[in-house]
Amino acid sequence: MNLIEKARTNKVSKEVEIVAKDESKEPSFILAGIASGRIVIPKNINRKLRKPCGIGEGLKTKINTNVGTSKDSSNIAKEAEKTKIAVELGSDAIMDLSTGPGITQTRRKILEASSVPVGTVPIYEIVITGVEKFGSVKKIPAEFMFDILEEQAADGVDFFTIHAGVTRNAVKMLAKKGRVLDIVSRGGALIAEWMVGNNRENPFYEKFDKVLDIAKRYDITLSLGDGLRPGSVADATDAPQISELITLGELQKVSLKDGVQVMIEGPGHVPINEIEANVLLEKAICNRAPFYVLGPLVTDVAPGYDHITAAIGGAIAASKGADFLCYVTPAEHLRLPTLDDVKEGVIATRIAAHAADIAKGVKGAIDWDIAISKARKARDWEKQFKLAIDKEKPRKYREASKPGAEDVCTMCGEYCSIKISEKCLKKVAL
Amino acid sequence: MNLIEKARTNKVSKEVEIVAKDESKEPSFILAGIASGRIVIPKNINRKLRKPCGIGEGLKTKINTNVGTSKDSSNIAKEAEKTKIAVELGSDAIMDLSTGPGITQTRRKILEASSVPVGTVPIYEIVITGVEKFGSVKKIPAEFMFDILEEQAADGVDFFTIHAGVTRNAVKMLAKKGRVLDIVSRGGALIAEWMVGNNRENPFYEKFDKVLDIAKRYDITLSLGDGLRPGSVADATDAPQISELITLGELQKVSLKDGVQVMIEGPGHVPINEIEANVLLEKAICNRAPFYVLGPLVTDVAPGYDHITAAIGGAIAASKGADFLCYVTPAEHLRLPTLDDVKEGVIATRIAAHAADIAKGVKGAIDWDIAISKARKARDWEKQFKLAIDKEKPRKYREASKPGAEDVCTMCGEYCSIKISEKCLKKVAL
Repeated sequence: MNLIEKARTNKVSKEVEIVAKDESKEPSFILAGIASGRIVIPKNINRKLRKPCGIGEGLKTKINTNVGTSKDSSNIAKEAEKTKIAVELGSDAIMDLSTGPGITQTRRKILEASSVPVGTVPIYEIVITGVEKFGSVKKIPAEFMFDILEEQAADGVDFFTIHAGVTRNAVKMLAKKGRVLDIVSRGGALIAEWMVGNNRENPFYEKFDKVLDIAKRYDITLSLGDGLRPGSVADATDAPQISELITLGELQKVSLKDGVQVMIEGPGHVPINEIEANVLLEKAICNRAPFYVLGPLVTDVAPGYDHITAAIGGAIAASKGADFLCYVTPAEHLRLPTLDDVKEGVIATRIAAHAADIAKGVKGAIDWDIAISKARKARDWEKQFKLAIDKEKPRKYREASKPGAEDVCTMCGEYCSIKISEKCLKKVAL
Repeated sequence: MNLIEKARTNKVSKEVEIVAKDESKEPSFILAGIASGRIVIPKNINRKLRKPCGIGEGLKTKINTNVGTSKDSSNIAKEAEKTKIAVELGSDAIMDLSTGPGITQTRRKILEASSVPVGTVPIYEIVITGVEKFGSVKKIPAEFMFDILEEQAADGVDFFTIHAGVTRNAVKMLAKKGRVLDIVSRGGALIAEWMVGNNRENPFYEKFDKVLDIAKRYDITLSLGDGLRPGSVADATDAPQISELITLGELQKVSLKDGVQVMIEGPGHVPINEIEANVLLEKAICNRAPFYVLGPLVTDVAPGYDHITAAIGGAIAASKGADFLCYVTPAEHLRLPTLDDVKEGVIATRIAAHAADIAKGVKGAIDWDIAISKARKARDWEKQFKLAIDKEKPRKYREASKPGAEDVCTMCGEYCSIKISEKCLKKVAL
């Protein structure tokens, strides 16, 4: 029995137990969420997963870190190190997006390095090994695609991004419409290349039952990819995007019925005033399935700072109901991220997720803020560092600029508002 | 005649002309905004201001950069340099928050270095020179406070933060309530110290006519300070904060009647779900006067990253109608910012302001995004750098990680989605 089947028969598995405890919820709440498709716990039957997590309605907002090689920047050990650091900094999941040499070996290293669920985008390996074997993207047989899915599943991958919503109709709609930026999803573009080259329907859509068969056997969670997500705020919430979302909603329903857990991926680049509508649309059209958002980036003008444009969008999206934030680093649009980029990306995304959890009213979320603010009131710097989302940077900042008095900082010195008001408020006659 | 009087008699001054052009608005729109108190143009009659700006309803969101020395970190030349860099990076205003030695000289240097409006918080100089002269905060005569205001006005300061809403009632309310963090405004804490020490009302409130007299003579814009703003998300939108806001609304009405331009300062630390309400409250209670927000920081847990916590809050606040964002740097709560901290703070705040302008539908705002996205589509890297909000960092990032092919980047290499979709979409039969 897989997780959905267990949930439907009220069997509390080990993962459900862990998640329920982590979320301060009853196991019955988690089971009901899984059975109805509103919560997923990504976990492959072949994998020993030390830290499973629940993603979805009523739970804490989770974050994902992308790692992986590219042809131009390929160092497997470095990607394994990024994985470890990301998990240490609080990432709830890892995606291996490798497209460099030794893709199988890389995946296995990352699976090994990660104590949290690992996802992949199988179309990358399909294209890379497929082009080697068959000569071009166009010539890759559909059957080969499912062979790769099977291979990755057997390796223990916990969730797959499958761009099944990039249908012929949707691609036509997009080509006809004309966007500022057409397809900005790597997986979406690759599958479109295959479809247009062969003048055929998307195999992941046409033979979705094959995808489901594999997912079901390994109990893999599907993350239905948004291959047509907007890559400029000017393209957001357009017909191709929403048309794809409608297809994903249909596929989610089929999957759930078949006992396969599903998340829905979302945009992309979206102006602030359209974010709430995007969350509402996903929840309404996709039967309240967990919403996994990439950003959204709220402006296109800030290369070098897209961890910030994405933190703004992610915080808003999650506060309105998005469940899972994919991190974005300062390197987005510019290069494969370094270890430092990864760190900055994870911290910015955790800030967004936590700020959203306060807004969502997640039980206990604000207690962290109260604890650090009490330490701030007491000018207990060690405690502030210990409680800070990044325990190192604040200490370095403070040590680089020593105040005259131990308990204040060099911003205000003796004119520390907290110190002054502490003294004077005691004397207020009430 | 000062700006409000001119606006009331439909006289288009030089500043109004510049602002109208900069905003692509008719001068009559700006005049109506000034006359009704919904727009301000901070400018002292004694100052040659090269780049005035309009702040308020219907205009682009503006940003402010705080500079200034502290006792523990005092280098006047460095603060002047921060001023210049901040303006170069696009800051619309500067506040000199100096509390270090040589406060008059520092102010004059900063006024000289700044081509944009300069604001101050006069209570700082009042306390620093007052304690030297009279021995303690408590012993400073109220009359001396107005002497300092007059001196700073004569120097050419364009706007004053005046904490006139920290009334005895509000301080009592706060002391009785008990917060996680009581008073986190330096100016608010200092004025409270004076009030409690002397058991007297706030002179800026009690003798607000004296404040108005000075402001009117030099045509200084008042920024009515939020001395009781929340310093923890757990304290947001509480009775002391809103009680102060009500007082500020009353004072705004009196000022406007008297021909003095006014902005209202706002919180602080506010959870995402309370930000819109805070903007609505300010607009409703303070007669749609421009709202100048400090953050808001959406969580307390991220020292070292408060430029991000504030960018999230600032973007949401401005998208809902806040007009003017005070920058926050990564050094907030930790130390006086370095030049690099200032840069990061300005960029993060400009991102928030621009993202909000897209959401507000400010005319032409999204054109910038479309232009850079078109350059991205064309893989025209030079044009992307030229159009980027920070023209240097993206170039450095790219140069540190050279791709095999010139037109892509090391994230995706030849699997660049833009490059792939460009080719294949051309072949779609429509």
